[in-house]
Amino acid sequence: MSLIVQKYGGTSVGTVERIEAVASKVAGYRAAGHDLVVVVSAMSGETNRLIALANQIQAVPTPREMDTLVSTGEQVTIALLTMALHQLGCDARSYTGGQVQILTDSAHTKARIETIDVHRIEADLDQGRVVVVAGFQGVDAEGNITTLGRGGSDTTAVALAAALQAHECQIYTDVDGVYTTDPRVVAKARRLDRITFEEMLEMASQGSKVLQIRSVEFAGKYKVPLRVLSSFKDGPGTLISLEDNDEMEKPVVSGIAFNRDEAKLTILGIPDNPGVAYKILGPVSQANIEVDVIVQNVSQDGTTSLTFTVHRNDMAKARKILEQVAQQIGPCQVITDDRIVKVSLVGVGMRSHAGVAARMFEALARDNINIQMITTSEIKITVVIEEKYLELAVRALHSAFELDQPDRTE
Amino acid sequence: MSLIVQKYGGTSVGTVERIEAVASKVAGYRAAGHDLVVVVSAMSGETNRLIALANQIQAVPTPREMDTLVSTGEQVTIALLTMALHQLGCDARSYTGGQVQILTDSAHTKARIETIDVHRIEADLDQGRVVVVAGFQGVDAEGNITTLGRGGSDTTAVALAAALQAHECQIYTDVDGVYTTDPRVVAKARRLDRITFEEMLEMASQGSKVLQIRSVEFAGKYKVPLRVLSSFKDGPGTLISLEDNDEMEKPVVSGIAFNRDEAKLTILGIPDNPGVAYKILGPVSQANIEVDVIVQNVSQDGTTSLTFTVHRNDMAKARKILEQVAQQIGPCQVITDDRIVKVSLVGVGMRSHAGVAARMFEALARDNINIQMITTSEIKITVVIEEKYLELAVRALHSAFELDQPDRTE
Repeated sequence: MSLIVQKYGGTSVGTVERIEAVASKVAGYRAAGHDLVVVVSAMSGETNRLIALANQIQAVPTPREMDTLVSTGEQVTIALLTMALHQLGCDARSYTGGQVQILTDSAHTKARIETIDVHRIEADLDQGRVVVVAGFQGVDAEGNITTLGRGGSDTTAVALAAALQAHECQIYTDVDGVYTTDPRVVAKARRLDRITFEEMLEMASQGSKVLQIRSVEFAGKYKVPLRVLSSFKDGPGTLISLEDNDEMEKPVVSGIAFNRDEAKLTILGIPDNPGVAYKILGPVSQANIEVDVIVQNVSQDGTTSLTFTVHRNDMAKARKILEQVAQQIGPCQVITDDRIVKVSLVGVGMRSHAGVAARMFEALARDNINIQMITTSEIKITVVIEEKYLELAVRALHSAFELDQPDRTE
Repeated sequence: MSLIVQKYGGTSVGTVERIEAVASKVAGYRAAGHDLVVVVSAMSGETNRLIALANQIQAVPTPREMDTLVSTGEQVTIALLTMALHQLGCDARSYTGGQVQILTDSAHTKARIETIDVHRIEADLDQGRVVVVAGFQGVDAEGNITTLGRGGSDTTAVALAAALQAHECQIYTDVDGVYTTDPRVVAKARRLDRITFEEMLEMASQGSKVLQIRSVEFAGKYKVPLRVLSSFKDGPGTLISLEDNDEMEKPVVSGIAFNRDEAKLTILGIPDNPGVAYKILGPVSQANIEVDVIVQNVSQDGTTSLTFTVHRNDMAKARKILEQVAQQIGPCQVITDDRIVKVSLVGVGMRSHAGVAARMFEALARDNINIQMITTSEIKITVVIEEKYLELAVRALHSAFELDQPDRTE
């Protein structure tokens, strides 16, 4: 018997039939003796329907009113799910974010949770009730309804699990776990039984959009074990948790992440003076453009070159800024390329293993894939390559690091 | 400059365009210098959509969850209307029943308002804001969402007007006021400029379903002047208020109400003993059947007869009860008739005028309409007649009392 927080997303509660299926899953856990707090999103499509209504009235709807509007989506789901539980004879009670006192700051449409008053939930759990909580929403100190921003239901679930010191926070979604890489690219991609918070963050930020990054950070900070499971088929899913120090042998590489949304900018012929990198990147960051991989070449003939990647949508804007900077610092040339992708090997095991990079580069060389940029962190090695090689590179690496083999240890 | 509470029903806010039209009406009042509190219903169709979802899950949905579910309907409208006001540059703020602390008892789906905390509303009004409040809903002492039952938005508006000591409570609907009688029956029916609470109650209970009876009672009790107006066309509507004692001359008859939903039961040959009326009507009321007009005939040959009307839906049930009673009290006969209607003259002026009944009966006699039963109160005379004469009778009375003539005084 343990306390579990479960979260079901919009697709999982998209119809009355699916809500009934969720109820029967929840009732099953309850019957098995677990205490349950269930967090739900709005039925899929509902949030978009509400936003469309608002946009018919205001191009940029008033944030406070937007939160009052869209928070009704989850409120509908909590009521329907609780009814479905009652229909199964399972005692349950629903709460909006405001009712359960999920206290947030007043940053409407992107509020942050400050505290959660768990007394009411604990009283219900003590009476054997399943507690159903509206995800994504809270209330500020003045009683105004707030929302945590899109996908914020994951954050609600993790925050509740942390506040209640739950045994596990289960995120039910339409995939059955976290994979070694995107199964659409590598057919042999394998579901991971376990992954660390750090690895998940590296995987998530690069396209494996299983979980909200913010909720993973949150779970890591409060040490809440997270499990990703499918709403539609049974299975153990993937457990995201702290690194288990007792495990003597860990896989060197846990997964391969990639990102197609990148573009590369190079500025050539820069006079190699101190502070020149700041002169170039300062204006870019002031324009709120996020810079990812940065490489500065070794100086030749008193000039150097700087290359960095940005989101593809920001390329044109970044190029304009660079051209202005180029005029100030001398006769430089700006080159852009939006036909590139980023591929990363991720794994906590890299910390204690040398030679991972060499093995990665060897595998890519074997298939004649040219590496344009390289950047490394403790648990990640990233390369930038030409876009057309993406699938080939990911498959080559997946195979080189034997990610399709279960229980590999090195 | 005065404080006005306005209420817009589901049809008035049924589409984004209509919400925008309401916003421009409200902004107009604000620009004219009035302080405004606006109560809105769910967009028409929305409450039924939500109830249908619930009924797919539970035949009899849990009342607490039903309230959580359907209260989202008004919450959507308050947000959209407030956005529409902002779009017009009119400062405004929305509140759910819970946020504005419309405190009710815990009788889910049919809660009664206990208190309203007007501090937050008054603070907003002081800052020049229009306050938009969700109708039909409140919150109990434990923070559970409650609803006042269908049509309860009128009650919310009247309760807010009473608590805020508003100058007037305006109910916007799809008719432009209260009429002397149903315009579908009498083409010459005339909109009344004024009517008293008492008259309105008599009119409303008999088919002129412009306003919720409960809200009229409430307005009368707290002396809140109520005005019924059309959302769709301009006009002064009908003011429902206390009797104006300064007015020396009042119309004798204000309107004609009628009701087609009645059936008549007669029990003949009753031994004329004391307590026999109770012996007959006691079991009927114990079966929760509401009895309306009752007439007991003068005794002849030691027996008497008793006739009363009930709602048509209750006739079969009442007949069964009477037949059982008849077996106990002697050789009586039970006759039923569901081809009857009730027609009433309503007017506070009757109090001080004799001869109204005579004039009524004369008008009916002129058209050979037989009166089956008669009952009178201080401000009403009711007759029961054969159903087929309904339209003829209403038109004859409308004309006899010159209800089509404006500003008639007698």
